[in-house]
Amino acid sequence: MGDTFGHRFRVTTFGESHGAGLGAVLDGVPPGLAIDWERVQEELDRRRPGQSRLTTPRSESDRPEVLSGMFEGVTTGTALALLFRNEDVDSSKYDDLKELYRPSHADFTYAARFGVRDHRGGGRASARETVARVAAGAIARQVLERELPGFECVAWVATVGDLEADVDPLTVTRAAVDATPVRCPDLAVASQMEALIGEVRKARDTIGGVVAVAVRGVPAGLGDPVFDKLDAELAHAAMGLPAAKGVEIGSGFAGTRMRGSAHNDAFIPRPGAPAASAGNAPGVATRTNHSGGIQGGISNGEPLLMRVAFKPVATIFQPQETVRTDGQPTVFAAKGRHDPCVLPRAVPIVEAMACLVVLDQWLRRPLRLATP
Amino acid sequence: MGDTFGHRFRVTTFGESHGAGLGAVLDGVPPGLAIDWERVQEELDRRRPGQSRLTTPRSESDRPEVLSGMFEGVTTGTALALLFRNEDVDSSKYDDLKELYRPSHADFTYAARFGVRDHRGGGRASARETVARVAAGAIARQVLERELPGFECVAWVATVGDLEADVDPLTVTRAAVDATPVRCPDLAVASQMEALIGEVRKARDTIGGVVAVAVRGVPAGLGDPVFDKLDAELAHAAMGLPAAKGVEIGSGFAGTRMRGSAHNDAFIPRPGAPAASAGNAPGVATRTNHSGGIQGGISNGEPLLMRVAFKPVATIFQPQETVRTDGQPTVFAAKGRHDPCVLPRAVPIVEAMACLVVLDQWLRRPLRLATP
Amino acid sequence: MGDTFGHRFRVTTFGESHGAGLGAVLDGVPPGLAIDWERVQEELDRRRPGQSRLTTPRSESDRPEVLSGMFEGVTTGTALALLFRNEDVDSSKYDDLKELYRPSHADFTYAARFGVRDHRGGGRASARETVARVAAGAIARQVLERELPGFECVAWVATVGDLEADVDPLTVTRAAVDATPVRCPDLAVASQMEALIGEVRKARDTIGGVVAVAVRGVPAGLGDPVFDKLDAELAHAAMGLPAAKGVEIGSGFAGTRMRGSAHNDAFIPRPGAPAASAGNAPGVATRTNHSGGIQGGISNGEPLLMRVAFKPVATIFQPQETVRTDGQPTVFAAKGRHDPCVLPRAVPIVEAMACLVVLDQWLRRPLRLATP
Amino acid sequence: MGDTFGHRFRVTTFGESHGAGLGAVLDGVPPGLAIDWERVQEELDRRRPGQSRLTTPRSESDRPEVLSGMFEGVTTGTALALLFRNEDVDSSKYDDLKELYRPSHADFTYAARFGVRDHRGGGRASARETVARVAAGAIARQVLERELPGFECVAWVATVGDLEADVDPLTVTRAAVDATPVRCPDLAVASQMEALIGEVRKARDTIGGVVAVAVRGVPAGLGDPVFDKLDAELAHAAMGLPAAKGVEIGSGFAGTRMRGSAHNDAFIPRPGAPAASAGNAPGVATRTNHSGGIQGGISNGEPLLMRVAFKPVATIFQPQETVRTDGQPTVFAAKGRHDPCVLPRAVPIVEAMACLVVLDQWLRRPLRLATP
Repeated sequence: MGDTFGHRFRVTTFGESHGAGLGAVLDGVPPGLAIDWERVQEELDRRRPGQSRLTTPRSESDRPEVLSGMFEGVTTGTALALLFRNEDVDSSKYDDLKELYRPSHADFTYAARFGVRDHRGGGRASARETVARVAAGAIARQVLERELPGFECVAWVATVGDLEADVDPLTVTRAAVDATPVRCPDLAVASQMEALIGEVRKARDTIGGVVAVAVRGVPAGLGDPVFDKLDAELAHAAMGLPAAKGVEIGSGFAGTRMRGSAHNDAFIPRPGAPAASAGNAPGVATRTNHSGGIQGGISNGEPLLMRVAFKPVATIFQPQETVRTDGQPTVFAAKGRHDPCVLPRAVPIVEAMACLVVLDQWLRRPLRLATP
Repeated sequence: MGDTFGHRFRVTTFGESHGAGLGAVLDGVPPGLAIDWERVQEELDRRRPGQSRLTTPRSESDRPEVLSGMFEGVTTGTALALLFRNEDVDSSKYDDLKELYRPSHADFTYAARFGVRDHRGGGRASARETVARVAAGAIARQVLERELPGFECVAWVATVGDLEADVDPLTVTRAAVDATPVRCPDLAVASQMEALIGEVRKARDTIGGVVAVAVRGVPAGLGDPVFDKLDAELAHAAMGLPAAKGVEIGSGFAGTRMRGSAHNDAFIPRPGAPAASAGNAPGVATRTNHSGGIQGGISNGEPLLMRVAFKPVATIFQPQETVRTDGQPTVFAAKGRHDPCVLPRAVPIVEAMACLVVLDQWLRRPLRLATP
Repeated sequence: MGDTFGHRFRVTTFGESHGAGLGAVLDGVPPGLAIDWERVQEELDRRRPGQSRLTTPRSESDRPEVLSGMFEGVTTGTALALLFRNEDVDSSKYDDLKELYRPSHADFTYAARFGVRDHRGGGRASARETVARVAAGAIARQVLERELPGFECVAWVATVGDLEADVDPLTVTRAAVDATPVRCPDLAVASQMEALIGEVRKARDTIGGVVAVAVRGVPAGLGDPVFDKLDAELAHAAMGLPAAKGVEIGSGFAGTRMRGSAHNDAFIPRPGAPAASAGNAPGVATRTNHSGGIQGGISNGEPLLMRVAFKPVATIFQPQETVRTDGQPTVFAAKGRHDPCVLPRAVPIVEAMACLVVLDQWLRRPLRLATP
Repeated sequence: MGDTFGHRFRVTTFGESHGAGLGAVLDGVPPGLAIDWERVQEELDRRRPGQSRLTTPRSESDRPEVLSGMFEGVTTGTALALLFRNEDVDSSKYDDLKELYRPSHADFTYAARFGVRDHRGGGRASARETVARVAAGAIARQVLERELPGFECVAWVATVGDLEADVDPLTVTRAAVDATPVRCPDLAVASQMEALIGEVRKARDTIGGVVAVAVRGVPAGLGDPVFDKLDAELAHAAMGLPAAKGVEIGSGFAGTRMRGSAHNDAFIPRPGAPAASAGNAPGVATRTNHSGGIQGGISNGEPLLMRVAFKPVATIFQPQETVRTDGQPTVFAAKGRHDPCVLPRAVPIVEAMACLVVLDQWLRRPLRLATP
């Protein structure tokens, strides 16, 4: 299982890196939506490899074929299926992976779970699967923009290795993010990051980092109590991304070192605040946003703030100790095309997952009775 | 929605802090299980307030009534319902909360979502809801112990404020954890933590920290690909806990600062390794465990390692700026019984959620065909 | 699993006939609803045994305790839990059932599935479980009445054995249904049914029949395409009732003997028709209603018509051939209190399931974009 | 929603009659399965139009492209996606449907639900969608045959109009079913059915009927208690088929006219009976099978027996009264290619749905603890 995400806006993905292609089936797309496919493509292009010298040169056009769910330019409200054909596939490059398990890849664990394994490019575990998520998220974003005035979802590279950017989540724009190939809107740090990534590549190594995301224009009242809190679903979404090892909402781990008196977000009146989803709570704001826009698992109208930790890519060009499928020790060094740092390409993926969660929760608001 | 967790071992909880009681309905409990209720109670007692001077003195026996699903001492395999009556309830203490929103509590967000709000003790948002999770997790643990030889799930307080314990996740025991009231098995740091918590209490303030958990004896092969990865479900479970603001698996955020060559977990042969769930992958181990026992979203047979960040408790006894339900500013200071630090009591709760996730995934292994 | 019904208005039930009690947890109840508990009790009383000499004399008050989800007289929007304590329980009467499988009961199949079995009064398989459904359905009905002007859900006994009532589904009222103990609004046939049931009782036997239900005031547009059609969900709901062996929508099996030219429901204009859920289809009606209000799995604004076949109750007072739990043949004759015909008591249960399905689908309408 | 069926073997379908194609994504396929694609094609060919003069001449090869989930001839255990390209598509034939609602079709209800409508060939509501179900069911069947010795699922045309076949569900074979174009194994009645269908076609009309299915070799113990009984899920599956208006399990509606003493299925010892799924119930059989193999919602080891009522096809070539999309009355007569009777082609579809339900429930058996 595990191929489906969401309850009311449901995305089911399929496909492998070196099979016929990848795709997504979207269930719960509102009918009558004139999807702006250019904007969907824009997101896909941001995720696509080969955009800059920082990323892998694999050449895929990543243009989806719409298999169903559109008629005369608008969504029909029934299953919308997208297919991305794999194009730049030369599986022979992966022949030497067939008999071993690459360290910190999913090779061994897929074999352990399924008994069989598509070794070509990671098979189903390939990060190429995220192409389907990005398309789904881009459609979710267009729905949210129609439903929520002022909705904006902007992610950026917050850290690479020890380098940490200084970015204001209230004002950061996509233009600023995309101004540098590393997708860090702090220009000074961005150029240091670029240098560091170049250095790491030369060392035939890889490096990790953190992507931060701010979601603005989300009304108060989104998120289910108890198990399916808004932050729990964001964490689920983010930790399900390849190479993700950590998630923070608001103050996150740093908040654990604070006192309650400093951490609490004081409420202040905000007369013109966007109406809460319930329609009858007053307009309020908070002086600080250590909560990351979520209190008790429900949005409070402040920007949602999340940070996602990505480990260094497992594929390195240095020799590493590992084990063959017959259990014997061996040594392995990767060849071919691989990113030294996935962070810049992770930016649109994190945005996509955030949009999927917010839209799904938007569709899960409680019914408000006309006559209680 | 949101009251249900899990797919094959499903827990549905209900109840509020100051209503009739709290409870859980468990669906998917294996039949024929002679539940050891003393051990369930042991977990509940660990979560219970009033265990030490570190925690709130609210007095609840927290003894569940079994409403269904047991017959002649064993589970029937049908819905097992538990009820915890609220006993020590004096809602009048909360009367002054009715007209305001406590900072960084769920008061405002519940009002925004539902339009109505049970202001007594946090209502449905009360951390008392976790009593139901702990009972469910304790039952899940007993199933796992029968299914998985060597299964152990041990959590501990890893940090309080800036104080950080040094604990070996491979060997830490519950006995060591429970040896101190702060549930930190590093004795030297534990006494510092106790002192710090006492100091914070005197300052009428609160403090956060990190709970770490190690799950040992989990075979390779648990976890779904793509969206419902084992780490994604652990993150979902942990971030759904009250006051949780961050989750890390394995190296977490620290791993983002490492190079791939240092972060990768080299595979080594382990002839006597526990069979993978698929039964036909070789016994392997890893030299390091930066992956936290999960690769590509699937367990690799190494201990699962997770850390959960808890913010400082929102209830402080100092005056704070906030807003009334009519939108006017006001000042609020809490009274009554409240923990200055929830970390010690969060330990059994984190264990419970980890057990729920692992058992659910254990029940979701793929079918292995007798004759492919 | 199987204890949960619905997606957006979810009912989870628990309990056994001779355990502590039965109950339901409702997730997705709209907040702010001032539930009319007297009307809920009215439905429960209609289902309750001992209402007339036609039904079993088991004496249960069937008054629910509200465990959670209500505050100051209205629903909070969070989990609403109800508990029905078992009162009139004397399990010793069932001791002789412990060692055998009653024919056409669930004794053997529960043993086959679970290995263990609560033999007292059918355990989890007892029809007493429907008390929880009736309460849930009564709450769903109150939501629907607030949302849908003109909503009415009326079931009646359509047949007992070979006796068939003549009832107009467009006009039949609850008053007419409840006017006779057999709940058949065709008075002439009702008295024949009563006589037949009395005769069957004297013969120490049982008899089956059909309950019909009409749901009026349902707007066009409810029901999901493909797998979760409105009729598919109604069939799921109805066939999940104890003793149900058949379901028909509209013309049902009789329709299979018709020609398309006679079966098709001609559309005619209906200017004042209730707006379709999408708001932009014209007001139409159909001349006939062979479709039972559902076309392509989606409601068309005409009354929903369903018929549910209930087999004769399995508990008869005549000796029957059967098998003991050790596999040896034996003979068994029931004793105690049992209905010769469940049909009258099935009427509120069928209504409850219909209300649950319609409300869940009402909450699952597609989002209509403000600006496509 | 509604595009997904099943919990542990999940099928998500997409596509429209006149779009790019139709497809299915299967989640939960056991890994390592060498799917016999010729047998899958055999089922698809049985469903395909144009097989005989009884069915519509639309020409589609209905050969699926495997988009994912297979590697080196076996399933990988991850999402298996199939695509059926639409080939014989001439949408211009449907232009005159754009402005009206065909009687007893889904035209109006889709418009009411979604506001938009793909009028070409029924769009998403087209029965062509079942091509995806048949492929999924054929794969499910292959899994069941490996898991359950003696598993057989055979459906046949039981009635057309008033003509009723006499068929023994214990012994009927696919060979006997497929021996006649009408798929009725009672040869005498089959030729009458053929004649009747020919007559109906000449009258430019259509006719309904009943498909019966027997599933043999299903062990005792499949089916969830309460809401998701095996019969409830079979009813859900069957009633979700296009044109289905009724479902019966075992004695069905006829059983309502029986006395309990005649209807009860006496248990008798069956020493060599296939082990129940729980492994510790004795081998038993029943003298009769009015229960249709299901008691208390759980299989009892006897053949599952279901009957599904299909109304006459809505598309007739006679003029009919209807309404235009602007609400004005009009007259409509269908043109083009259409079956006068869908029954023969419904046979493989009913089998497919039965296989999907049984496999899903097979995968949902309770865990049996090694050491209770």
